[in-house]
Amino acid sequence: MQEIKLRELLDSLTWTEKVGQLVQLSGDFFHSEELAVGPKKKLGITQETIDVVGSVLNVTGAETIRVIQERYLQNSRHKIPLLFMADIIYGYRTIFPIPLGLGATWNPKLIEEAYGVIARESRSAGAHVTYAPMVDLVRDARWGRCLESTGEDPQLNADFAAAMVRGLQQESGREFEGIASCVKHFAAYGAAEAGREYNTVDMSERRLRQDYLSGYKSAVDAGAKLVMTSFNTYDGMPATGNEFLLKEILREEWGFDGVIISDYAAVQELIAHGVAKDEREATALAMKATNDIDMKTGCYANELESLVTDGAIDPELVDAAVWRVLKLKNDLGLFEDPYRGSTVEQEQQTLLTKENRSLARKVAQESIVLLQNKGELLPLEANKNKILLVGPYGDEQDLIGLWAVHGKSTDVVSIKEALEKELAKETFSYEKGCGLLADYQFLGEFGATKEQIHSLGMTDNEREAALNKALEAGKDADIIIYAMGEHTMQSGEAGSRTDISLPLIQKEFIEKMTELGKKNILIAISGRPLTFTKEVEQMDAILQAWFPGTEGGNALVDILFGKVNPSGRLSMGFPENVGQLPMYYNEFKTGRPLNSSTHRGRFVTKYLDSPNEPLFPFGFGLSYGRVDYEELTVSSKKMTDHLTVSIKLKNRSDYECLETVQLYIQDVTGSVVRPIKELKKYEKINLLPHEEKTVVFALQREDLYYYMKNMQFGTEAGTFNVFVGRNANDTQQAVFELL
Amino acid sequence: MQEIKLRELLDSLTWTEKVGQLVQLSGDFFHSEELAVGPKKKLGITQETIDVVGSVLNVTGAETIRVIQERYLQNSRHKIPLLFMADIIYGYRTIFPIPLGLGATWNPKLIEEAYGVIARESRSAGAHVTYAPMVDLVRDARWGRCLESTGEDPQLNADFAAAMVRGLQQESGREFEGIASCVKHFAAYGAAEAGREYNTVDMSERRLRQDYLSGYKSAVDAGAKLVMTSFNTYDGMPATGNEFLLKEILREEWGFDGVIISDYAAVQELIAHGVAKDEREATALAMKATNDIDMKTGCYANELESLVTDGAIDPELVDAAVWRVLKLKNDLGLFEDPYRGSTVEQEQQTLLTKENRSLARKVAQESIVLLQNKGELLPLEANKNKILLVGPYGDEQDLIGLWAVHGKSTDVVSIKEALEKELAKETFSYEKGCGLLADYQFLGEFGATKEQIHSLGMTDNEREAALNKALEAGKDADIIIYAMGEHTMQSGEAGSRTDISLPLIQKEFIEKMTELGKKNILIAISGRPLTFTKEVEQMDAILQAWFPGTEGGNALVDILFGKVNPSGRLSMGFPENVGQLPMYYNEFKTGRPLNSSTHRGRFVTKYLDSPNEPLFPFGFGLSYGRVDYEELTVSSKKMTDHLTVSIKLKNRSDYECLETVQLYIQDVTGSVVRPIKELKKYEKINLLPHEEKTVVFALQREDLYYYMKNMQFGTEAGTFNVFVGRNANDTQQAVFELL
Repeated sequence: MQEIKLRELLDSLTWTEKVGQLVQLSGDFFHSEELAVGPKKKLGITQETIDVVGSVLNVTGAETIRVIQERYLQNSRHKIPLLFMADIIYGYRTIFPIPLGLGATWNPKLIEEAYGVIARESRSAGAHVTYAPMVDLVRDARWGRCLESTGEDPQLNADFAAAMVRGLQQESGREFEGIASCVKHFAAYGAAEAGREYNTVDMSERRLRQDYLSGYKSAVDAGAKLVMTSFNTYDGMPATGNEFLLKEILREEWGFDGVIISDYAAVQELIAHGVAKDEREATALAMKATNDIDMKTGCYANELESLVTDGAIDPELVDAAVWRVLKLKNDLGLFEDPYRGSTVEQEQQTLLTKENRSLARKVAQESIVLLQNKGELLPLEANKNKILLVGPYGDEQDLIGLWAVHGKSTDVVSIKEALEKELAKETFSYEKGCGLLADYQFLGEFGATKEQIHSLGMTDNEREAALNKALEAGKDADIIIYAMGEHTMQSGEAGSRTDISLPLIQKEFIEKMTELGKKNILIAISGRPLTFTKEVEQMDAILQAWFPGTEGGNALVDILFGKVNPSGRLSMGFPENVGQLPMYYNEFKTGRPLNSSTHRGRFVTKYLDSPNEPLFPFGFGLSYGRVDYEELTVSSKKMTDHLTVSIKLKNRSDYECLETVQLYIQDVTGSVVRPIKELKKYEKINLLPHEEKTVVFALQREDLYYYMKNMQFGTEAGTFNVFVGRNANDTQQAVFELL
Repeated sequence: MQEIKLRELLDSLTWTEKVGQLVQLSGDFFHSEELAVGPKKKLGITQETIDVVGSVLNVTGAETIRVIQERYLQNSRHKIPLLFMADIIYGYRTIFPIPLGLGATWNPKLIEEAYGVIARESRSAGAHVTYAPMVDLVRDARWGRCLESTGEDPQLNADFAAAMVRGLQQESGREFEGIASCVKHFAAYGAAEAGREYNTVDMSERRLRQDYLSGYKSAVDAGAKLVMTSFNTYDGMPATGNEFLLKEILREEWGFDGVIISDYAAVQELIAHGVAKDEREATALAMKATNDIDMKTGCYANELESLVTDGAIDPELVDAAVWRVLKLKNDLGLFEDPYRGSTVEQEQQTLLTKENRSLARKVAQESIVLLQNKGELLPLEANKNKILLVGPYGDEQDLIGLWAVHGKSTDVVSIKEALEKELAKETFSYEKGCGLLADYQFLGEFGATKEQIHSLGMTDNEREAALNKALEAGKDADIIIYAMGEHTMQSGEAGSRTDISLPLIQKEFIEKMTELGKKNILIAISGRPLTFTKEVEQMDAILQAWFPGTEGGNALVDILFGKVNPSGRLSMGFPENVGQLPMYYNEFKTGRPLNSSTHRGRFVTKYLDSPNEPLFPFGFGLSYGRVDYEELTVSSKKMTDHLTVSIKLKNRSDYECLETVQLYIQDVTGSVVRPIKELKKYEKINLLPHEEKTVVFALQREDLYYYMKNMQFGTEAGTFNVFVGRNANDTQQAVFELL
C-alpha cells in the first residue's frame, strides 16, 4: 500500500479503532469462545476491543493463523490484518542450540544463516514477527535468562545481534523475505540484582552506554523493525515507562522509528512497580514514553481512548504510535497478503527439512565447548573401547531448552540414539543410573499435577537400584560418559538459582561412579555456566553442550569421535563458585590489582577463599589439535587513524583446527577508569593439519572509542596494550601509542 | 591562635613548607633512622620533606608521640606541630564490639557514650584525629569491611554516624574536649562489586544520594572535622580524584570546609586505576578534586610544588588546602599545647579503667543478638545443669576483631574465664574440640613464618584426639555451648569471602557433636553475617556475638544466665546462602512481586532454590520475654505536615524487656520506584515484667522525603503504608494519605 493510502487509512479510524491497533492479546481471545471468558474477564477486555485489536501473541501454525485472520477480517470494517507475533528465539521447529551456545560459536556469519532458517520456518508457519533476538548483556550466571543471551561481551553481542536481525529479516533493498525482528529487552534487563529474575537494575549512565546498550543499538542499526521493553527499572523507572530510555536514547539518539512493544503485561506492572496508581496512569506513562503496543493487559484497551478524549494525552502521540504499527503491517505486505504466502502445504515443505537439520547440526558442533581433555582422552575411536553412557540426559530428547516454545522434543536426536548409530552393540551400553532431580515440586508452577510430578522422581529404592545397575555396568566399561545437567525448567525466564552447580543427586552419583576408576567424560547440558570446581577433578574430559537443540545428539557424537574438532569458545566465563558473581572478564582496573607493584599480600583486590578469575575464562575452549601463536606484530608503534596487528598461527597437530583468534585492547590511562581488557576483533580461522597462517587485524581509531569523562564517545591520546591469543587469559601482548 | 595570626603563618610558609602540611607519613619515618631508609627510598621521600611534613599516621602512645613531636618542633622553622592521626575505630585500649555489633544495639545514645570513652582514651594516648567513624552502607556480607559498618540501613547509619562524631569530638560551644573525627570512606565503598575488596563501584546518582550518602552527610552535619576518601570509583573516577564527590557534593552542596584526606596510598593508586599516567598527574587530579592531605605516598611531596610553580595548579587551591590543615591544628589547640595534655601519667589513669570496662560490657550486652531459642533453653540457670564449653573461641582472648589496631587481646575476658567465674567446678568443663581453621596459609600475608603458621594448625592426629575428648566430655554434659566463628583475619579490610558459612572443620565438628543429642547452644563470633542455614537445625539456641571486645566473655555470660535479657537487633540481614547477595530489606518494588495479584507460579521475582528473604531479617532479634504489639493507631487518615503513630506494648512475661520498636514506611506510588519498606523511626523501650507502655512516634512530612524523579528531595501526595513491629518482617500495618 502506498504511504498516502496508509495515511488515509489512519485518518479514517475512530479512536477505538486506533487504540485497537496498539493492543496485543493472546490467541485464547480468538481461538475459542469459551476460553476467552476467563482472560477477558481478568483483563476487563470487551468484545469490542477484540474486534479491533491489532496483534496476536504466540499463535503460530499456517492453519490456525489462517482461521483467525479470516474470521477477524470478515468482521473488520477497515480490513486491517492482524499482526501475528511469537516467541521464536532460537528455532521455530528446527531448534538450534540456545543462544548462550550460539555465542560460543564466535561465528555470527553462521548464526545469520541459522536465523535465515528460523525466518523461513516461522514465515511458513504464519508468523509475522518474532520476539528475537534477545541481546541482554549477562554477567551473572544465577540469572536464568543467560540462556537467551549470546553472553557477556558488548562487541560479541553486538555482532550476533546484527547477524540475527539480518538472518531473520532477510532484507535486500526493498525486498523483505524474512519476518520482522523485535529486539529485546530494552534495556539492561541482564543486570537484575543478585541474579534474581525481575529484580531491580541500577547502574550509572556510563555503564549503560558503555556496556549494556551495544546489542540493542547494533540490532536497531541492522534494521530491526521492533523493540521490546524490559521488565526492569533504569534510574528508578521501569523501562516501559522510561522516557529517557525509549524516547531520548532509542527514538531521538538512535533514530528508531519502528514499533516499541511492552513485554508481557509490563504496562500494567507499572502499578506493582509503584510508579502508577492505576491502569490509567500506567497507560499514560507508557504512551508518553512512546511505547506503542501494550502486550497482554487491558490498560491501553480500557484507558487510552478516554485519556485522549479527556485531553490528558496528546492525540498526536497516539497517532504516531498507530502509524508505526500500520507501517509495519504495510512493510510486511499484509495489506496485499495477510498470510504472507503461508499455507499448510508450504509449511510442511519448510519445517524441519534435511537442510535445516543439517545446519542445526553444524551450529551445534560449533557451539559445543571442550572444557577439559586430560591425557587427550578425546577424541574416542569407535569400537575400540567399551563405552557406558549414564545419566539423566543419556536417553533424553528434551535437549531444546525452556524457550523453544514451538519446538518438539520428539524431533530431537538423543545422545543415546546417536551413539547407537555410531557404535557396535558390543562396545556400547546405557544405564540411566540417576534422575535429573530429587525434587520436581517446582513443575507444579506450570500446572503439572501431583501425580505427574511424582512419576518423574524416583523412590529411594528405585534410586538405589539404578545406581547399582550403573555401578555394575561400569565395572565392564573402559570409558563412562556422563550425560548430566540442569532440568529444562531450572534455567530460562524465571529460572534464577542461588546454587549453580549440577543438581545434588547427580553430584552424588558422579562421586560414586568415579570411584570405579574408569576414564570419565562429562557431557554438560545447561542453560547457564555451571560451577564445575569438583567435576574438573573427577572427569578426564568435559564437553559443555548447552541445550544443543534438535540435532544435539548427532553433534555431540561428531565431536566425541573426532569427526569434528571442537571449536566452541565460551562467550561467558564459568565461575569457580557462586560467591564470585557477578563477574566479567572486562572488569575495571582497581587501585590495588592482584599483581600490584605497590601493594603486596593481603591488601589487594581479592577473596580470601577463592581466585578472582573464573574456572574457565571468557573465550576459553580446547581443540583436539595444537595451534601455536607466534610473532605478534604491530604495524607501527604509533597510531593515528589505523594500524594492523598480525600474528602467526601454526597448527602443530594432525587435526584440522578451527581456531578463534581473539584481539583485546587495554587503554592504559583514560579520563575515567578503563577495563583491564576489551575484545575488539576476532576471527575464526581454519587450519589444515600442520598448516600455518598469518592473521591480520585492522584496528581503526574508532575501535578505541569509549565514553570519556565528559560522556562523549571518542578516544584520548596515550598508551594502549594490545593482546592477541586463545582466550581472555592466554594472550601475547604488544604496545602502541595513540597520537 | 587567632585566625589573623594563622593567616600570617600561612603566608610566611615557602611552597615546600606548604606542601609539607599536605603530606602524611607513617611513624617509621620519624621513629628510627634505620627504619626510614626503606620506606623513604620506596616513596622517594627526602629528608627535607620529612622535616616539614604535616601529619603522622598510626603512631600512638603519650611517650612516643612526645618524643617525635619534640624532636620535630626543635627542627622546625615555624613550629607548626605535627598532627597525629590513627586508626581508632571501635576502641583505643578498651575495645568495644565491632561496629556491626554496635549497629545491633539500635542505641545511638549509648554508642555516643562509648565513643566518648574512645575519645578520652585516645586523647590521653596523644592521638589528635581518628579515622572514624566508618559509615559505609553495606549490603553484601562477602565484603570483609561489613565489620566496620553499622549496617545496611541509611537511617540507622546516619544516626550512628552522628552519635559517633559527637562522642569522639565532645564539642560544646567552642570547647573541644575530644579528638577530631575523620568520617570515612567517602563515598559508597561498601558497594564493591561481588563483595570483593577494592573492586569497582557503579551505581546511579539516585542510588548514591538516596541510600549511600546518608551516613557521611550525617557525620558532616554533626561536625566531623575531616573526611577520608574511599578506594573505589564512582562514575568511573576513583573517589580521591572525583570532583563530583569531593567538590560538588561534599564541599559545595554540604558546605564541608574541613580537611579531606586520601585513604592509604589512594593518591598514588590513581595510577593503577588508570586515570593518571604518573605521580604528577595523580597529584593534580587529587588536588583539583580538593583532596587536602596525601596519606602515605610521595605524590604530593614530590610533585605538588612543581605543579604550582609550573602554573599547572592554581596556587590558591593549595593555599586553601594548607589553610584547612592549619585551621584543624588550631581548632585542636596544638599551637598552644602540641600534646593536648597527654602525659604518660594521664594516659595510665585513663586507659582501660573500671568504668571504661563497665561501659564496654554494657555495650557488648546490647550488641549480642539472640537469633534462636528453641524451647526457651535460654536463659540457663547456674549450676543446675552440667555445661560443656567447646570450640576454638571457648578459651580464646582474641575477641576484638581485625581493626582494633591498638587494642590488646591480653586484656580480654574470654568466654571460658567468664564461665568459670559463674559456675561451680562440678557443673562446668571445657574441651577445645576443634581448631578455628584447617588452613592458616593466609596468615603469611602478615609476615607470619611457616613455623608460626604450622603451630596454629592441628595435625590429623591431634584433630582426631581433640574431637574424641570433646565427644567423651559431651556424654557427661547436659548442655553443650559451642564457641565458634570466623578467624579474626577472615573479616575486616581485605577479608572478602565467597563462602560465608562457618569454617568447614567447625561445621564438621558440630555435625559430630550434635549427634550426642544434647542441648546445643551456638555462640557465633564473626565480623559479618554468616549463613546459619544448617546451624538453625542443629542448635537449640544461637547467640550472635560479633567480635564482642574486651568485655566479651562477661557480656556473654550475663546473657546466657539471664542477668541481662538480650536486646540486640540485626542491623544487617543474615542471608540463607551466599547466592542471595547482595541483599537488603529496603529493596525496591518490582513489577512481579512474590505475592503478585496478577502473576502466579513461576513468573514472579524469586529464585527456584532459595527464598528471597534472608534467614534472619533486618531488625531481628529475640528476647527472653514476650512483648505483644497491639492497637497500631495513626492519629489521622490524612497528613499534611505531621501525624503521630502509636502502638501499645504489653510485656506478657516475667522478664524485664528492652524492646526495639521499629517504624517503617512505604510510599505506595512515587514518581520513581520506591522501596518495599524503609525504616524511619525506632525506639528502644524498657518494660518491667508485665508492664504496658504506649510508644508514640511523630512522623513529619520531611520523614517522607526522597529523591523524586527530577532528583529534587521532597515528597508527593499519595498513599503511604506505615508498619510498626519487631523487625522488618514482623509488623502491623496502617495506612494514611499524604495531602
